[in-house]
Amino acid sequence: MATNQSQHISQQFEKELQDIRSRVLAMGGLVEQQVTQAMEALVTGDAELARQVIGNDDNVNKMDVLIDEECIQIIALRQPAASDLRLVTGILKTITDIERMGDEAVRIARMALNLSDKDRPKKNYRELHSLGVHVRKMLHDALDAFARFDVDSALAVAHEDADVDSEYESILRQLMTYMMEDPRMISRVVDMMWSARSLERIGDHARNVAEHIIYLVEGKDVRHLSVEKIEQVVKGE
Amino acid sequence: MATNQSQHISQQFEKELQDIRSRVLAMGGLVEQQVTQAMEALVTGDAELARQVIGNDDNVNKMDVLIDEECIQIIALRQPAASDLRLVTGILKTITDIERMGDEAVRIARMALNLSDKDRPKKNYRELHSLGVHVRKMLHDALDAFARFDVDSALAVAHEDADVDSEYESILRQLMTYMMEDPRMISRVVDMMWSARSLERIGDHARNVAEHIIYLVEGKDVRHLSVEKIEQVVKGE
Repeated sequence: MATNQSQHISQQFEKELQDIRSRVLAMGGLVEQQVTQAMEALVTGDAELARQVIGNDDNVNKMDVLIDEECIQIIALRQPAASDLRLVTGILKTITDIERMGDEAVRIARMALNLSDKDRPKKNYRELHSLGVHVRKMLHDALDAFARFDVDSALAVAHEDADVDSEYESILRQLMTYMMEDPRMISRVVDMMWSARSLERIGDHARNVAEHIIYLVEGKDVRHLSVEKIEQVVKGE
Repeated sequence: MATNQSQHISQQFEKELQDIRSRVLAMGGLVEQQVTQAMEALVTGDAELARQVIGNDDNVNKMDVLIDEECIQIIALRQPAASDLRLVTGILKTITDIERMGDEAVRIARMALNLSDKDRPKKNYRELHSLGVHVRKMLHDALDAFARFDVDSALAVAHEDADVDSEYESILRQLMTYMMEDPRMISRVVDMMWSARSLERIGDHARNVAEHIIYLVEGKDVRHLSVEKIEQVVKGE
């Protein structure tokens, strides 16, 4: 019986895990919406929407605390063995990253507020908008990989991070040029730089989620490795 | 026997916990050194030291992976009950924040590299140096509070974060003025802004560590609360 308990996921445990996974996905969905609305507030100058995003962060935080508590209760009550335990601790790490993406959405919303009473640039923050779309796709794909515990999709997300990083670097270079050409734009451009940085950080967190998925499915801790190295580890080369 | 096992920390468990705590402190000490050296590289323009900090990050990451693995093994083998389990999960969260402080030290070292071949400003990055000293003290105090599992010291660290934040805001305003007064400084000042942001983030992570200490000692999840609210929760008001 003890061996059975430790080697197999009991039905009850499986049900609880399913429950937690749904909650993580709900939390992820909320953060995805926060990022989407923060970017919309930034691009359109909608101060009301920016304030809404800032106010909504409390809900993200509450979900974080709740899921965290549930995970620890599951560990305490079910005393899961190695691989099941990995599932739960992997989820604990996943929500930490999702929560921090929520914080970055709030940072973008704050910049949107700053920018809402300044002139809109001709291009209407087109570069930021495009980076935002890219990062949101990464976040969406990471949540999707989590929903299906799909290692290949998680790997694809980790790959995507390099593209986001180089898009971010190129935006930074462009923003530096704007400032040098027209110093009156400095204050506005600095807010755009912070927003770009927040988007890049959301990409990093999405990549972290992808790494947690690989850990909880494969039992391999691939954090701090290059994407190439992760690929080798997953494929057992 | 089962009740005894779950209600009391066994000697073996206690020894393992002591061991893990020492490792966390060693990891924290290394990150403290990384922050100190990154700041020294920035202020003195020492490119060699900056490269050393960047190279050392691998050691921080290895400690992160190792302690993480040990914590999960302890949970799997000892199956600790609620309050003991809280200790271990609290430590898991603590090392996540310490590791991310290490990442910020690397970001500062990268800026130090960028700045090492540019002219030094007259004040030799005095403001950044002073913020760095402040943040390092916060980090040191957080590790000290962790070493003694001291809730009062943890509370003091959480309080300190507000001062670091306002010092950071004032540096940002000053840096914006520099750029507007002399647009030739823009590129250098932007690197200083990123460094200031990294220092401010290290302060945030030190505050997170303080919150984890309160959680693992008191069993109260005080994340996402204001310092005033944390104080009320801890004092049971």
